Amino acid sequence: MTRFNAPLAPEIAASEWFNAPTPLSLQALRGRPVFLHSFQLLCPGCVAEAIPQVLRIERIFANTDLQVIGLHTVFEHHAAMTPVTLRAFLHEYRLKSPVAVDLAEDGSDIPVTMRRFGLRGTPSSVLIGRDGAIIHQAFGVEDDIAVGARIAMALSARMPDIKPAVASDEEGACADGTCAVSPSAQDAA
Amino acid sequence: MTRFNAPLAPEIAASEWFNAPTPLSLQALRGRPVFLHSFQLLCPGCVAEAIPQVLRIERIFANTDLQVIGLHTVFEHHAAMTPVTLRAFLHEYRLKSPVAVDLAEDGSDIPVTMRRFGLRGTPSSVLIGRDGAIIHQAFGVEDDIAVGARIAMALSARMPDIKPAVASDEEGACADGTCAVSPSAQDAA
Amino acid sequence: MTRFNAPLAPEIAASEWFNAPTPLSLQALRGRPVFLHSFQLLCPGCVAEAIPQVLRIERIFANTDLQVIGLHTVFEHHAAMTPVTLRAFLHEYRLKSPVAVDLAEDGSDIPVTMRRFGLRGTPSSVLIGRDGAIIHQAFGVEDDIAVGARIAMALSARMPDIKPAVASDEEGACADGTCAVSPSAQDAA
Amino acid sequence: MTRFNAPLAPEIAASEWFNAPTPLSLQALRGRPVFLHSFQLLCPGCVAEAIPQVLRIERIFANTDLQVIGLHTVFEHHAAMTPVTLRAFLHEYRLKSPVAVDLAEDGSDIPVTMRRFGLRGTPSSVLIGRDGAIIHQAFGVEDDIAVGARIAMALSARMPDIKPAVASDEEGACADGTCAVSPSAQDAA
Repeated sequence: MTRFNAPLAPEIAASEWFNAPTPLSLQALRGRPVFLHSFQLLCPGCVAEAIPQVLRIERIFANTDLQVIGLHTVFEHHAAMTPVTLRAFLHEYRLKSPVAVDLAEDGSDIPVTMRRFGLRGTPSSVLIGRDGAIIHQAFGVEDDIAVGARIAMALSARMPDIKPAVASDEEGACADGTCAVSPSAQDAA
Repeated sequence: MTRFNAPLAPEIAASEWFNAPTPLSLQALRGRPVFLHSFQLLCPGCVAEAIPQVLRIERIFANTDLQVIGLHTVFEHHAAMTPVTLRAFLHEYRLKSPVAVDLAEDGSDIPVTMRRFGLRGTPSSVLIGRDGAIIHQAFGVEDDIAVGARIAMALSARMPDIKPAVASDEEGACADGTCAVSPSAQDAA
Repeated sequence: MTRFNAPLAPEIAASEWFNAPTPLSLQALRGRPVFLHSFQLLCPGCVAEAIPQVLRIERIFANTDLQVIGLHTVFEHHAAMTPVTLRAFLHEYRLKSPVAVDLAEDGSDIPVTMRRFGLRGTPSSVLIGRDGAIIHQAFGVEDDIAVGARIAMALSARMPDIKPAVASDEEGACADGTCAVSPSAQDAA
Repeated sequence: MTRFNAPLAPEIAASEWFNAPTPLSLQALRGRPVFLHSFQLLCPGCVAEAIPQVLRIERIFANTDLQVIGLHTVFEHHAAMTPVTLRAFLHEYRLKSPVAVDLAEDGSDIPVTMRRFGLRGTPSSVLIGRDGAIIHQAFGVEDDIAVGARIAMALSARMPDIKPAVASDEEGACADGTCAVSPSAQDAA
């Protein structure tokens, strides 16, 4: 499961969090697998398929240390999908896991975290391993069986024996809150 | 199909219309059957079941004189379901038929048209006959077969031979734009 | 609804009936609309979509004089879909309306009634009006809304004023079990 | 994943195999995980839910060493669900993995393998680990996510270091083709 050269997940940049007492960070979650799902509340495929799948994931892996995180990545109809509307949406759809409002960036329709991960649209999902590396990233909703299988693999993987020094290096690369694989790749995204 | 004593549908009170060049009124639609569906854009049952059914109704009865009308009856999360969000919602869900924003009323969470019809919640639907009377009103989504059957019955019904004088009386009862069955019943609602 | 020149439905030829104390005939059902559905018990589309739709039709039109009739039109895997298996199938799938085993014919994979109606495969359905004419015939499962609408139209149609003499002529044309409107119309079909 | 005291799966007793050049045995499959699904071709829940799930499992784990095996456990309508009908069923539903016809036993409606596993009805499924032990057994269809997760865990588990002598003992308990946990438990079933 530890795949050398697998890219470290970049950090989440959020302007606001729901369902979380304090902001979360992937850095602080190192050691636990994370299922990160990107959605927009007016995206029909998100509402019809992705959110129900997330609710099943929340329920089925409730007794594990999987961390489910939603990312509200608004890249269209910005005025229509405000945090006020998102709060009511989360209430109505009974999503219990933390949801970050992806940070808007001046001069771009694409919010920061969405750009960092190179997400192609919504719904998208990213499975992040205990070591912080991206195990799988997908645009669209995938088969429940495959999703369940991948999460189980991520859960069963042991935290790799990475020396603290290595972790520090990673932190260094996240100095500004982003954990880019390489600056050049980042620019190309 | 002409059911004597069947209540006339009250008039729609709208603060804004989408998908319509000018405001519609049930009064002006007299002679055509109307399928009026009440929804809220953050209501899960509306989005998952009622709106898809409306899209099927739009398609299957496209060549008839059935008028489909949506009614955005916000009675909760008012700040979250504004006309700006509704406009984007209609775009994303590809609803083509006219949609009225039900008129908010000071001091009440329930908007005016919702109260006039006595709708119990969303999604709801009202089938109105060529004579302006309510044929069927339901809270929740009903079987497509039954919905299709009722609309077909409404379409096949001939406009009853009501003398113009009678129609005038009805208009009289709608002087202010509302077509209440009786003021006392209205108060009780 | 009375469509002149609409072809009269041919008669059902059955080797056996289930859910019926005595054999039915379309001739004897004249005056009532009939929803005839053709299926094979090992046809995936029949089992997944058509049979559930028939169950909904049975339920929703239970209080009308619509006659639902199933037609087991085996045209492949004949040894696998015997009446013994059909009986158990009807029990397990809780189909309550009469089902005819379409009459096999020597030298042909296609049973008699299937050939008479010109059914292209399973599932198929035929809606027959009160006058015995075919209102609609389809291969595959259609939208519930459209099916409900057509059945409602068939139910609301009055039995046409056909003189008894005409009916007698039709009976004469059914001497061999088929009820062709006229040989020339038959050729044109 | 190696759960000590987990019961070894009993052996399959089949009167016939489909989709398999030669009969399979769980004994010979030791070392590979097995997803065994029990069904009847006239069982509505099997056809509507379990078989489609099996097809998804076949597809998603195609590149792994998971062995999917169907077990046609007829315990009612025996005359209606013969191997001739099963063969056509497998063809129509495009099931590609091996299917065993569970061995009928004189004087019992319950076939042999069904009784050995203590299956409560159809559809049922049994997930067997690389070590031959039952990981999970369920009556009814479970969530795809949970099924996918369990199969992934079974696939990722290493074959336990069991000394050959232990395996020989197990073989001894399977002398007649059955692998009963204990004769007394068997009697109680």
